[in-house]
Amino acid sequence: MKRKSLEAATCPVARSLDTIGEWWSLLIVRDAFLGKRRFGEFHKSIGLAKNILAARLRKLVACGIFRLEPASDGSAYEEYVLTEKGRALGMVVMSLRVWGTRWLFDGDPQAPTVRERATGEAIVGLGFRTSGGRLVTPADLEFVSPPTPPARPQRGRRRAHRPLALQGGRSR
Amino acid sequence: MKRKSLEAATCPVARSLDTIGEWWSLLIVRDAFLGKRRFGEFHKSIGLAKNILAARLRKLVACGIFRLEPASDGSAYEEYVLTEKGRALGMVVMSLRVWGTRWLFDGDPQAPTVRERATGEAIVGLGFRTSGGRLVTPADLEFVSPPTPPARPQRGRRRAHRPLALQGGRSR
Repeated sequence: MKRKSLEAATCPVARSLDTIGEWWSLLIVRDAFLGKRRFGEFHKSIGLAKNILAARLRKLVACGIFRLEPASDGSAYEEYVLTEKGRALGMVVMSLRVWGTRWLFDGDPQAPTVRERATGEAIVGLGFRTSGGRLVTPADLEFVSPPTPPARPQRGRRRAHRPLALQGGRSR
Repeated sequence: MKRKSLEAATCPVARSLDTIGEWWSLLIVRDAFLGKRRFGEFHKSIGLAKNILAARLRKLVACGIFRLEPASDGSAYEEYVLTEKGRALGMVVMSLRVWGTRWLFDGDPQAPTVRERATGEAIVGLGFRTSGGRLVTPADLEFVSPPTPPARPQRGRRRAHRPLALQGGRSR
């Protein structure tokens, strides 16, 4: 089943989903954070058919999430290394981890947990980091859409409901 | 193409991806945060075939992310309302939004932005909220896997590389 491409979407959530492409891609990124770098390591971990995994990795390289490097041990292998853009996906992986840990293990004593090292307090949600390095809460955020041409009167409610999926044309 | 089910995975990232199921599901959750509640509203926004959208919504209700409620205006419609578990997915949607805003608009003046209301500082990443309500950084975190039976000597490196995708059996 082919999805409608969301690449041109003005909503950053939709555009992100299109770029990442498939759930599998986030598992590949997760594995990269856990130290895996080679095709064979991803294949063993994720169990996806080789041709599908190869296509996913190609896409992740093409969109700048991984770059290919010569093997660190001097062998003929190539290694997949997360770029800065790819490492930034750590927050998506981490948000899934925190959510899954909280909501999907349901009292299972084998459930993994995430806590603050210094105090042992459980991690229960996310905050947001500003360019100045401070952490703020969702209530502190403001979402800013670029200005739209004031050609027509606003239609009020509808626009107010979609502050992120920008309506209307571009200026010029 | 059928994915291998990750439902039983001990890694909370894999289990989350299995529960959410499809990228489309996160767009439905995004729309719910933007105020949409009815089948027709989701359909109009996302443009997915009705039978597929209906199946996704059924799955999201079945796994406790949405609940069905009588229409708030007293009409015969039913409405999809995010549960607490569903609202907690806001952090996943938000992490995708912050990442996409930072990495996928590439100088486009039409790009949406997210900033701190009080200071105007851009939001560039995420932090983590403890059960006590404080915000901490990734460096403050500790990942805890449940104890595994000490029946065999540890295989060192492999286990060290997979602190979250827990290897080995359950105790008893």
